[in-house]
Amino acid sequence: MPDRAAVFAMPAATLRTAVAGVTGYAGAELARLLLGHPRLRQTPPVFLTRTSAELDGTTMSLTGLHPQLSGLPNADASRVSLFAGKPDFAQLELQGIEVLFTATPHEQAREWVPEALGHGIRVIDLSAAWRLRHEENRAIYKLTDADTALASALQGEAVYGSPELHGAAIAHARLVANPGCYATSIILALAPLLRANLVDLNVGIVADAKSGVSGAGKTPSANTHFMYAADNLSAYAVFGHRHTGELLEQLHLTAGQMQFTPHLLPIPRGILSTIYVRLNEPSSQIDLQNCFYDFYAAAPMVRVRPSPMLPQIQHVVRTGFCDIGFQLGPDAKRLVIVSCLDNLLKGASSQAVQNMNLMAGWHEAEGLV
Amino acid sequence: MPDRAAVFAMPAATLRTAVAGVTGYAGAELARLLLGHPRLRQTPPVFLTRTSAELDGTTMSLTGLHPQLSGLPNADASRVSLFAGKPDFAQLELQGIEVLFTATPHEQAREWVPEALGHGIRVIDLSAAWRLRHEENRAIYKLTDADTALASALQGEAVYGSPELHGAAIAHARLVANPGCYATSIILALAPLLRANLVDLNVGIVADAKSGVSGAGKTPSANTHFMYAADNLSAYAVFGHRHTGELLEQLHLTAGQMQFTPHLLPIPRGILSTIYVRLNEPSSQIDLQNCFYDFYAAAPMVRVRPSPMLPQIQHVVRTGFCDIGFQLGPDAKRLVIVSCLDNLLKGASSQAVQNMNLMAGWHEAEGLV
Amino acid sequence: MPDRAAVFAMPAATLRTAVAGVTGYAGAELARLLLGHPRLRQTPPVFLTRTSAELDGTTMSLTGLHPQLSGLPNADASRVSLFAGKPDFAQLELQGIEVLFTATPHEQAREWVPEALGHGIRVIDLSAAWRLRHEENRAIYKLTDADTALASALQGEAVYGSPELHGAAIAHARLVANPGCYATSIILALAPLLRANLVDLNVGIVADAKSGVSGAGKTPSANTHFMYAADNLSAYAVFGHRHTGELLEQLHLTAGQMQFTPHLLPIPRGILSTIYVRLNEPSSQIDLQNCFYDFYAAAPMVRVRPSPMLPQIQHVVRTGFCDIGFQLGPDAKRLVIVSCLDNLLKGASSQAVQNMNLMAGWHEAEGLV
Amino acid sequence: MPDRAAVFAMPAATLRTAVAGVTGYAGAELARLLLGHPRLRQTPPVFLTRTSAELDGTTMSLTGLHPQLSGLPNADASRVSLFAGKPDFAQLELQGIEVLFTATPHEQAREWVPEALGHGIRVIDLSAAWRLRHEENRAIYKLTDADTALASALQGEAVYGSPELHGAAIAHARLVANPGCYATSIILALAPLLRANLVDLNVGIVADAKSGVSGAGKTPSANTHFMYAADNLSAYAVFGHRHTGELLEQLHLTAGQMQFTPHLLPIPRGILSTIYVRLNEPSSQIDLQNCFYDFYAAAPMVRVRPSPMLPQIQHVVRTGFCDIGFQLGPDAKRLVIVSCLDNLLKGASSQAVQNMNLMAGWHEAEGLV
Repeated sequence: MPDRAAVFAMPAATLRTAVAGVTGYAGAELARLLLGHPRLRQTPPVFLTRTSAELDGTTMSLTGLHPQLSGLPNADASRVSLFAGKPDFAQLELQGIEVLFTATPHEQAREWVPEALGHGIRVIDLSAAWRLRHEENRAIYKLTDADTALASALQGEAVYGSPELHGAAIAHARLVANPGCYATSIILALAPLLRANLVDLNVGIVADAKSGVSGAGKTPSANTHFMYAADNLSAYAVFGHRHTGELLEQLHLTAGQMQFTPHLLPIPRGILSTIYVRLNEPSSQIDLQNCFYDFYAAAPMVRVRPSPMLPQIQHVVRTGFCDIGFQLGPDAKRLVIVSCLDNLLKGASSQAVQNMNLMAGWHEAEGLV
Repeated sequence: MPDRAAVFAMPAATLRTAVAGVTGYAGAELARLLLGHPRLRQTPPVFLTRTSAELDGTTMSLTGLHPQLSGLPNADASRVSLFAGKPDFAQLELQGIEVLFTATPHEQAREWVPEALGHGIRVIDLSAAWRLRHEENRAIYKLTDADTALASALQGEAVYGSPELHGAAIAHARLVANPGCYATSIILALAPLLRANLVDLNVGIVADAKSGVSGAGKTPSANTHFMYAADNLSAYAVFGHRHTGELLEQLHLTAGQMQFTPHLLPIPRGILSTIYVRLNEPSSQIDLQNCFYDFYAAAPMVRVRPSPMLPQIQHVVRTGFCDIGFQLGPDAKRLVIVSCLDNLLKGASSQAVQNMNLMAGWHEAEGLV
Repeated sequence: MPDRAAVFAMPAATLRTAVAGVTGYAGAELARLLLGHPRLRQTPPVFLTRTSAELDGTTMSLTGLHPQLSGLPNADASRVSLFAGKPDFAQLELQGIEVLFTATPHEQAREWVPEALGHGIRVIDLSAAWRLRHEENRAIYKLTDADTALASALQGEAVYGSPELHGAAIAHARLVANPGCYATSIILALAPLLRANLVDLNVGIVADAKSGVSGAGKTPSANTHFMYAADNLSAYAVFGHRHTGELLEQLHLTAGQMQFTPHLLPIPRGILSTIYVRLNEPSSQIDLQNCFYDFYAAAPMVRVRPSPMLPQIQHVVRTGFCDIGFQLGPDAKRLVIVSCLDNLLKGASSQAVQNMNLMAGWHEAEGLV
Repeated sequence: MPDRAAVFAMPAATLRTAVAGVTGYAGAELARLLLGHPRLRQTPPVFLTRTSAELDGTTMSLTGLHPQLSGLPNADASRVSLFAGKPDFAQLELQGIEVLFTATPHEQAREWVPEALGHGIRVIDLSAAWRLRHEENRAIYKLTDADTALASALQGEAVYGSPELHGAAIAHARLVANPGCYATSIILALAPLLRANLVDLNVGIVADAKSGVSGAGKTPSANTHFMYAADNLSAYAVFGHRHTGELLEQLHLTAGQMQFTPHLLPIPRGILSTIYVRLNEPSSQIDLQNCFYDFYAAAPMVRVRPSPMLPQIQHVVRTGFCDIGFQLGPDAKRLVIVSCLDNLLKGASSQAVQNMNLMAGWHEAEGLV
């Protein structure tokens, strides 16, 4: 029997990709990145999006949906195929699609992914459908109906799509669960310290995170109304945000060890997380810096800033980078870490492209810098 | 027969007011102004708002609806009565309501006002229902169903609620049609010049107006989504904005003489209109200034700025003022006028309070400065 | 000998006030509040501001400086007296000034206040000059040159101008040190819990605070440039913000017990502080709520929100309120408190007016609601 | 003698470029575009910037100056050479620099360009130094001191760097005067109509333009302070903006035929111009559309939108496109044209790269889409 994973990981001259779900903000950014990706100029992605029954089987122009993409390579010629129900995976297999991005509600992704894999199509899922190993963490997403035996079996195979943490596994994965935006920002800030056992977990970690409005999605609602979000700041989902499970699983923490509070920032894009930890032992700025530098030495999309320089949202917006900086307190034990990224890019679409690059055997940052 | 108007115009120690429609932005501002009005502290307004059938007859707290009002005089004790269908005008009459503010969709205002007047209640309508004398200008509001013979008869009695233009008539009016926000900004900028016959109407007038997002109302929609409005500017309703009729009627212009283009500004509140005219004859800065100064000599809520100082939105936001300034071109004939106001205040609620003050015989600016 | 304090505290029909330093944002808001104060309409404040030597002794119009104030009662008639050096306190005494607001750099306030008091003028100082009892906390302000023996003696007499904490002392004070904006927001959120000994101080308190740009003052700088502040968020002064001393002194904490990190929000005004504490013993929502309600039962300018409702900046901007809310964690010990205020009002000018009201024996909220 | 221009225009595998003036917003964007340009990855640009005497001859890191560029190809290795006085053009010639971008104040560009050309270096000047053919239009820039005979001679040779209007001349030019941001937006909207003689110039053209704050430059000032620009809109330089000369020269208009009013928008980047014209003869939507389509048929960086779709700033920000749309009035003669671009890109740096592409014989849009 051939080694399926080895085949998957072979560098390809190009790659046939499809995007299911292209109407939202992350979908639009994904389309922009894939259309501009140097390896995909000859094979632009296939776009699909779900629609009502009466439009099933029709198409619309990609640039009619997202006029800002007009003029980019292949953009004006791209059509979006509309389907009611679910994508026609057999057809996608016939078209030779190798990697499918799902930028859809998690219920749909949970249901569709097993079928896509069954047709030999690798999947990068941008929803939360496959991120969580433990059923109690998945509960908040109400995925139980889709939790067939097959889904449960596949869950074990899903790789959490953080290239900096799981790059090797991603390269060979059939199913990559692209991380949440807040989760990426906090995990990347803490992983180096936690892996080195530097953090006093008895005191607990506070992650005070702030996100731009695009994180709330495109559907108009009271809280995404300009009049609500502008000139405002508000905390929400205190003690109950859905990304908490990702934080705990990826950082190997218990619920009592991590306090995560998200806030809605009056800006379109960007997340800044301010993270408070106490160290087990007094440390020094240089040692901490080396801890971060070493951990991210081979990570082209993480920029560790030399203390006391701190990241700010402006430096990362419209880029695929996650910036990390820190300051150590005068007692050499209290530590503030600041982490920034663009929630639609490193927090969603560019991280998905990073994962695609790894899966295709290309340089991780290709098409992103 | 007693002189009804004379009775209406008698200065009152206080006034019994009601507000129908208090959920929107203008309704909230109106509530704030009335609760804080020095003459109404002993008789806070009665609040009503339309609701679904199952909530008919119940009440809710005003500060539950608008938490920002909590702590203001009488605010926390105020209840909002919910009704399906239409207000109980007989009950309002029994409560001694003298002035009713309607801050509702124009269809409702068109239907309700005749009944309110029938109960001896004067009305200040913040919708467009009664602003337009000519049926062809009203057409855009699709009010025909409500255009009963009674409504047509009452239309002639309605006074356009611009205190600076029609103050005397407002004082005695039973029905005041509170002006539109864009309309107020442009009419106040042009009225002094047009009344003095200074403007070359063959060339035509250009009014390029820009409004904050609150002008689009509270219902979430694609265009009021933060992600659409923020960091953006867009023109809309070119050649077809609904306030055009008010401009033409109040300024006595024909459609071809006025070009009005609204834009959506990425700010919560405020309108700035930049207005371009050519004068019939060369003029001077001092003569034009005097034209404005004289016209607004007795208008406490209009601030004429000395040229070349120009108004800016920041100076008027959260105030009841309309600011007007201008610059004359080197040819002494081309003229740029800039006019600013807060669309929720001078463009809606504070202008309504100004009208109430006039109707009650109080100082026009009471409760507004 | 007459009881000076008793005289000070006698309710006055009016009050003669002066404001030294009226060019900044807090000065403008103070001018607006005082001009609109119902008790001061007959005796508008005297305005002074420091200037260069060549303008010494001249005056300028208040509304030339702040055009947004034009049209308010007494505003257009108000002149600002310009002085080089220091105010002429003898002249102020002759004018019968009873209360002087100093909205100036702290170095000036430290130097001037003793002289003002010497002329029998009570002072409300909006700078940090007199807020800190302990010299090591004052060090960050570099006030040593002005630290004469007289100043040191007066320091003990200065009352920290938090009406909710020190109302009785403020009423009789000669010198009120108006609190810092961040400090007000955090102190009011924590004082009820700390006074009740509910907080586990071994774990420490995290106060993650976010402020609008007006907090950075009016002088143009790289960090107040629109291009820096807009669409951005950044942490600053980590482990070293100047308000830390106020927090520690007022809350009776040691440096290691309080972690305070300020951030620059892309909005003009408003502070939101998210505060993380662990309780000594498990508690309940209702007990915590009562703790806050009881503490602020007589405080008209603090609005405690019922959990799980949380304050947001929009509810307090352009008001004199501080809003406080909280959520208790599932372990009944971890607690998140959110506190909001307008940094120019409750964080500066309206709190100063609140203090003036107390000093004059008026209702604390007069002129503020 | 060899044909210098022909040599210049020969397609090159790569190009040696230098950028003088890299500290401002346009400089940073230019650096980003050039570092990412596919043809320049092997030959990253040389960066120079003016400094004080004591730093003359030193270097600093590009990403220290602009941290947002870190991680881009060649960025972290790039040094910026600091010079007092003027660049060492002989040295640049020795380094083989073929094209120099000057992103400096216009006084410096006026002085330096002749010398650069003398060293055989072609120049793309982003300042206004060389844009204006007529001395009376240049007067506003106060360039007289630098107006040597040599400069006057070179002025005739300068090509206005609008690729859509002067592409052929740009390809062979030694000196390209990169257009102003407002000017680009208005010229591209009007050129098709004016060249076709469709516009009634007796009535005159109104161009009401609105720009984000980056257009005002990086130096902190009262008007670029966040507190001035945010939540505000203001008109400025009415009848006197410096770009007026470019408009008149490029569109062959007299001063009386064009009314241009700029406004400061509360957003970082982007210009929207609303332009009002009256046509000589009644026209149709389809004819006007064809007029624009034909004119820009070969222009990859102009996107003509089908009427009634109108451009908006959001569609062009962070792109090199200029979007143009229009609506024709019911009289078939009044016409509103809307034009949008990113002032730092199509209004500055990406237009400069477009010009570089033409000068190098590459595809005009290379590195820009």
